[in-house]
Amino acid sequence: MNHAVVLAGGSGTRFWPESRTSRSKQFLDLTGGGPMIRETLDRLHPVVPPERLWIVAGRKDAPHLSPAALGIPKGNILLEPEGKNTAPAVALAAAVISAADPGAVILATPADHAIADVRAFHAVIRKGLSLARETGRFVTLGIPPTHPSTGYGYIERGVPFPGKVTGAYQVARFAEKPDLATARKFLRSGRFDWNSGLFLFRTDAFAESLARHLPEVEAAIREAVRGGTKGFARRLAEAYRRMPSISIDYGILEKEKGILVLPARIGWNDLGTWRSLHEFLGEEGGNVTFGDVILTDCRNTLVRTDKGLVAVLGMEDTVVVRCGNAVLVCPRSRSEDVKGMVAEVRKRFPSLA
Amino acid sequence: MNHAVVLAGGSGTRFWPESRTSRSKQFLDLTGGGPMIRETLDRLHPVVPPERLWIVAGRKDAPHLSPAALGIPKGNILLEPEGKNTAPAVALAAAVISAADPGAVILATPADHAIADVRAFHAVIRKGLSLARETGRFVTLGIPPTHPSTGYGYIERGVPFPGKVTGAYQVARFAEKPDLATARKFLRSGRFDWNSGLFLFRTDAFAESLARHLPEVEAAIREAVRGGTKGFARRLAEAYRRMPSISIDYGILEKEKGILVLPARIGWNDLGTWRSLHEFLGEEGGNVTFGDVILTDCRNTLVRTDKGLVAVLGMEDTVVVRCGNAVLVCPRSRSEDVKGMVAEVRKRFPSLA
Repeated sequence: MNHAVVLAGGSGTRFWPESRTSRSKQFLDLTGGGPMIRETLDRLHPVVPPERLWIVAGRKDAPHLSPAALGIPKGNILLEPEGKNTAPAVALAAAVISAADPGAVILATPADHAIADVRAFHAVIRKGLSLARETGRFVTLGIPPTHPSTGYGYIERGVPFPGKVTGAYQVARFAEKPDLATARKFLRSGRFDWNSGLFLFRTDAFAESLARHLPEVEAAIREAVRGGTKGFARRLAEAYRRMPSISIDYGILEKEKGILVLPARIGWNDLGTWRSLHEFLGEEGGNVTFGDVILTDCRNTLVRTDKGLVAVLGMEDTVVVRCGNAVLVCPRSRSEDVKGMVAEVRKRFPSLA
Repeated sequence: MNHAVVLAGGSGTRFWPESRTSRSKQFLDLTGGGPMIRETLDRLHPVVPPERLWIVAGRKDAPHLSPAALGIPKGNILLEPEGKNTAPAVALAAAVISAADPGAVILATPADHAIADVRAFHAVIRKGLSLARETGRFVTLGIPPTHPSTGYGYIERGVPFPGKVTGAYQVARFAEKPDLATARKFLRSGRFDWNSGLFLFRTDAFAESLARHLPEVEAAIREAVRGGTKGFARRLAEAYRRMPSISIDYGILEKEKGILVLPARIGWNDLGTWRSLHEFLGEEGGNVTFGDVILTDCRNTLVRTDKGLVAVLGMEDTVVVRCGNAVLVCPRSRSEDVKGMVAEVRKRFPSLA
C-alpha cells in the first residue's frame, strides 16, 4: 500500500527568532495555514490516508508532536534518539513500515516545504507512487526552475523513461548547489530541475539499495527493529550511536543507478529563508505582514509580530520579525545569513537562541 | 539673583516608541545619563543652586516630577493647566520668581537638549547672566552651525555689542527654519547661528516687554499670581483658558528691539529626532546601541531596546527601537516622519501612542 513519511528532523535556524532551539521550523505557522508539519500532513490526506502517514522527528521535538492535533496514530510518530541526517531517518521509517506492510511504497517528504498547487501535487505523487511500484526504481520530484537559484541542488534529466506512466525521465546526474554562472547555464540548458527533496520508493528496493550503499545503517536499523516494541527505544539509541550522520541524497540517491525524475509544476517553495517566505506569499514589490503591523512608505518588506506593535517607516527589501523576547531586522538579501547570526545569539544570549 | 527655568512642556512624539502620550521626551533617558530633565537640572547646579532652579511642566506630567528625584524644592515645580506654548510658560515662571526676588535674572532653557561641553556651557551662561543683568536686554545663545541644517531657526549676528562682557553681538534678525539653499547661504555667510532656544533676561525687562507685546498674557498671569497661593490653581486654569497659544520667539523675541546673541560653542544638540541622537552619541558611520543588541555587518545604525534582544544584520543608516510593546524601524533620514506615523498609531492602536 501507499505510505508517506514526513521527515521532521530539521531545525531551521534561519527562521530565528520564530524558530528556536526548542521550536524547529516545521512547528511554526509561517504561511498562516497552521504549523508547517500539519499543513504537510493535511495536504497528503487525499492520496494517503492518516493511518499510513508517518513522522520521523527528533526526541527533543516530542512536546510539539500531539498525535491528536496531527490526526495520525500515536504509533506512526517515530522519534529518533539523535539527529543523524536523512538516510537513517528514511531507513528507520522504511524498516518499521515494511515490517507491517512488506509491499509498501513510500513517499518521503520534508515537513517544512510549501506547495501552492495542491491539485497538481496530488496528481504528480499519484503518478510517482505508481511509477515506483511498477519499476522498483527511486523516483524523485524535480521542480522546473523559475530563476537561476544558487540555493538548491539540481537534477539533470536524461532520456524520457518509457512505460505506462508518462512524463518521467532517467536522471542523468545530481548537481550540488551551483554558483551563479553554473545556475544560469543550467537554466538556459532547459535540462535541469531543482531537487525538491521529495522522492518515492518501494521498500524492498530501498532495503536492497541501503544494504549496498550504507550497510552499517542497514544493519543497525534492522537489529533495532527486529526485536519488536519491547526495549525498542534503548536498542534504537544504541543503533543511532553507531550510525554515521549522512543524507539520503549523498548516501544513496547520488550513488544509485536507474533513478527517475518526475518534473512537478506544483508551486513548490522550500521556504528556506525569510526571503523565500516573502517570495512565496507576496507579489514582487509588495509587503507581507502578520500581526499588528503599521507600514508607511514601505516596499517589498516582510514584517511579522506575535505580540505588540511593529511600525515600519520608509523601508525597502527588509525583514522585520518580532517573536517573544527577540527582534530581528535584516535586508531580504541577507536572509541566508540569519543562521550565522544565531550562532552569535547562542553564544551571548543562549536562552534566546 | 540668578535663576534658571526649565521649560518641560513638550511632548516629543518623534521619539516614539520611547516617548508616548503618557511619557514625554524630557522624561526619557536618551543619552544614558538619566532622564533628560534631570540631566538639564544637574548641568545647571554649578551656576544656579537647586533652590533657584524652576520647572514649568504640564499637569499631565506631574507623575514624572518627583521633587526629591529632581533635587529641587516642591514649590519650584510650576504646573500648567494646559499647554499654551512657551510664552505663557516663561511669563508664569517670571511672574512667580520676580514676586519673591524682584531683581531676578533668569536663564530659560528647554528640558530636553543635550550639551556635550558642560564647562563651556557654564562659562557662556555666566557671561549671559551678567550681560542680561547689566544691560536689561534679552540675551540669546546662538550655536555656530556645523552644517546647513533645515531643522533649526537661525539668528543673524549684527555688530559686536560693546561693554565689559565681550563676545556678544546685536541680533540683526531671527530667521525661521530655512530651505536647504538658504541654509547653505547662511552657512557660507558666516553671520548666522542656530537658535538654541536658550535665552536670558532680567525679570523687570521681561515684564515690560510682555506687557508691550502680549498684554493679554501679561494681564492674565499677573492676576493669577497676585492672589497668592490660596486658589492659585483655579485662577491659573482660568488664566490659561483666556490666553493665546504662542511661542516666546514669535510672541516676543522676534518683535523686541536690542536683543543680543552670545555665540556658544558648547556641543549643543536639540535631540530633535532619533537621527540627531545618533549624531550626538556616535561617530559618522558608527553604530550606537542601548540594551541587549547584536549587530552584524551594520553601519551607521541606532539600535535600542529596553527589554529582550534586538538582532540587526546587514543594515545601514537605520533606526531600530524596541520599547515596551512596540518596535519602530526606519531609515535615519526618515526620523522626522516618525511624528506622522505616530498619528497613524494613535488612530489604530490608541493605547500604544
